[in-house]
Amino acid sequence: MPETHVHRRDALRAHLRDSEVDAMLVTDLLNIRYLTGFTGSNAALLVHAADSVEAERNTLFCTDGRYQTQAAEQVPELEHLIDRASAQRLAERVESRVGSYRRVGFESQHVTVDGRDALEHAAPSAELVRTPGRVERERLVKDESEIEALRMACAAADRALAELIEHGGLRPGRTELEVARELESRMLDNGATGPSFETIVAAGANSAVPHHRPTPTRLSAGDFVKMDFGALVDGYHSDMTRTVVLGEPASWQREIYDLVATAQAAGREAIRAGADVRDVDSAARDVITGAGYGEQFLHGLGHGVGLEIHEAPALSQRGEGTIGAGMAVTAEPGVYLPGWGGVRIEDTLVARADTPELLTLTTKELVVL
Amino acid sequence: MPETHVHRRDALRAHLRDSEVDAMLVTDLLNIRYLTGFTGSNAALLVHAADSVEAERNTLFCTDGRYQTQAAEQVPELEHLIDRASAQRLAERVESRVGSYRRVGFESQHVTVDGRDALEHAAPSAELVRTPGRVERERLVKDESEIEALRMACAAADRALAELIEHGGLRPGRTELEVARELESRMLDNGATGPSFETIVAAGANSAVPHHRPTPTRLSAGDFVKMDFGALVDGYHSDMTRTVVLGEPASWQREIYDLVATAQAAGREAIRAGADVRDVDSAARDVITGAGYGEQFLHGLGHGVGLEIHEAPALSQRGEGTIGAGMAVTAEPGVYLPGWGGVRIEDTLVARADTPELLTLTTKELVVL
Repeated sequence: MPETHVHRRDALRAHLRDSEVDAMLVTDLLNIRYLTGFTGSNAALLVHAADSVEAERNTLFCTDGRYQTQAAEQVPELEHLIDRASAQRLAERVESRVGSYRRVGFESQHVTVDGRDALEHAAPSAELVRTPGRVERERLVKDESEIEALRMACAAADRALAELIEHGGLRPGRTELEVARELESRMLDNGATGPSFETIVAAGANSAVPHHRPTPTRLSAGDFVKMDFGALVDGYHSDMTRTVVLGEPASWQREIYDLVATAQAAGREAIRAGADVRDVDSAARDVITGAGYGEQFLHGLGHGVGLEIHEAPALSQRGEGTIGAGMAVTAEPGVYLPGWGGVRIEDTLVARADTPELLTLTTKELVVL
Repeated sequence: MPETHVHRRDALRAHLRDSEVDAMLVTDLLNIRYLTGFTGSNAALLVHAADSVEAERNTLFCTDGRYQTQAAEQVPELEHLIDRASAQRLAERVESRVGSYRRVGFESQHVTVDGRDALEHAAPSAELVRTPGRVERERLVKDESEIEALRMACAAADRALAELIEHGGLRPGRTELEVARELESRMLDNGATGPSFETIVAAGANSAVPHHRPTPTRLSAGDFVKMDFGALVDGYHSDMTRTVVLGEPASWQREIYDLVATAQAAGREAIRAGADVRDVDSAARDVITGAGYGEQFLHGLGHGVGLEIHEAPALSQRGEGTIGAGMAVTAEPGVYLPGWGGVRIEDTLVARADTPELLTLTTKELVVL
């Protein structure tokens, strides 16, 4: 909806006030998608910074000939230029506005060293000012349409897992690869445009490897089967993990599972507007450390999700900042015992003033198959 | 195989001689994969430039804790450092070698402006020298193991299409999305690790849009159905396009099809060591222009394939350079009639001294279903 994107561009203009730039060149494709709705693979956007009636009239969108029709459909409200070298073309426009555009922000965390040279060459009279992370900062807090896309993505993943289990897809003899393919296929059947990342299915001792990629290993009776997967809806990435057991759990399995479930609940509980990200991580980590397994919790508690599968904020001891209402994050503690197996339990949530909104609805009880 | 990668690093050292650098920092993941066989998602490589017995001993590989085991398996012959900020860690090592490492090359077409700052900060005594494209240049000519991976990828795509047709999967009433999903699923069944890009299935008037993404549009009797798809094997990307017709072709369809087939054959014929890339494009383009459809051939003749789906060389009027034996390229002319339909026919080939080696083996006769 054009109004959404105009609103987002206005919010960016507010963010740019401190940098005192006359315009900002946006070249990261996801940031362009966020600001315009354009989904093609080549584009650049020059956002007029002053918050005035001319702001939108002076904001320029550039893509190449392949996307002329698509741009007309997706970004009807802005002036279009057509050029394969989109960023440079907009830099040339900056040069033609010499006198009005003296300082132009660019995405220094995305633009390459050679790319910056090309921009400088095309706009020698302007001062190129580093304005990294301005759009990413805005993307931190999700609006209702973004949360709806995440809800649908989480629902597709939930249903895929439910169907997998209903149809007997998780049983000894099947391979990790077969299970992963079935999950991805079922997510597509349930409204996803694709998987949001390479599905992880890790059985038995493999479940102790946090990022184990699926192999032809066969599921066996007694195994933990850890599945970490997500769906893509409208560009938005969901992320969930469930660990099931094939047959009655051994006592060590029951113990580790309950520990991770308790830690995950504590982590979720701590996610609220104003919470420091390190405190959120600690809320879960302390439960695990307290039980003597601190060394086996090999990663941070979670991460933001949105147009990327991993975005700010980082819910970890190395993270910085506080949670804001509307941020979409994961809570995914794990305990991994090499040679034995591991458990990870993960939901996607939206932070609120108080209790977060849970988007992943699959039960977190230990499922015994 | 380590010997392959040692050989590739030695070849890079030869390429670095002109730059007079003491070492090169490689940070692009595909380039690192090419030079070491490492397939993880975070790494950096510092290649000692002088071609001496110490070259390999002084070449350093860095990744983060998630990949410690994987690095030990995939890159056993190099010294490993473990650090999440892999490039910076290697830059710090450069600093510690001040006196020996005065000039260090970096991938300026990949390293961001902010990234370069971080490197400079970590290695203030060294001069950071731009050495873009050195590894890409080496990747241009494929060795036998790469060509074998491409053969297998092409075979997976060929078989997927054959099975799709055998099983009646291309028929009126099915949607473009269903056909695309089936092609991707069958490629996985036939040895691919995944599709090499988002499969294009374009039926009827949609076939006139060169990069049409599959939609719920149903295939209808009389349609051209254009399918552009490829498989990933061992990181290598194949690419093929076939256009079929549902029912006896109309005369305009027969005419356009034969034209594109003739142009594609001429393009293939021109691919040989020493040929200028623009001449290769012209060989196909002139056939189409001569028939009056020059304006309907909306893109270049082809592109290189390998660890990326689009790499050098560009077989187009905007391309530069000559074909070398061992380069893997596509030949994919098309003619697109908006509102009616379009035809594209594409193979993946390996350039040789004379006739190229054809990797895509599916017939190029017009298939009538």
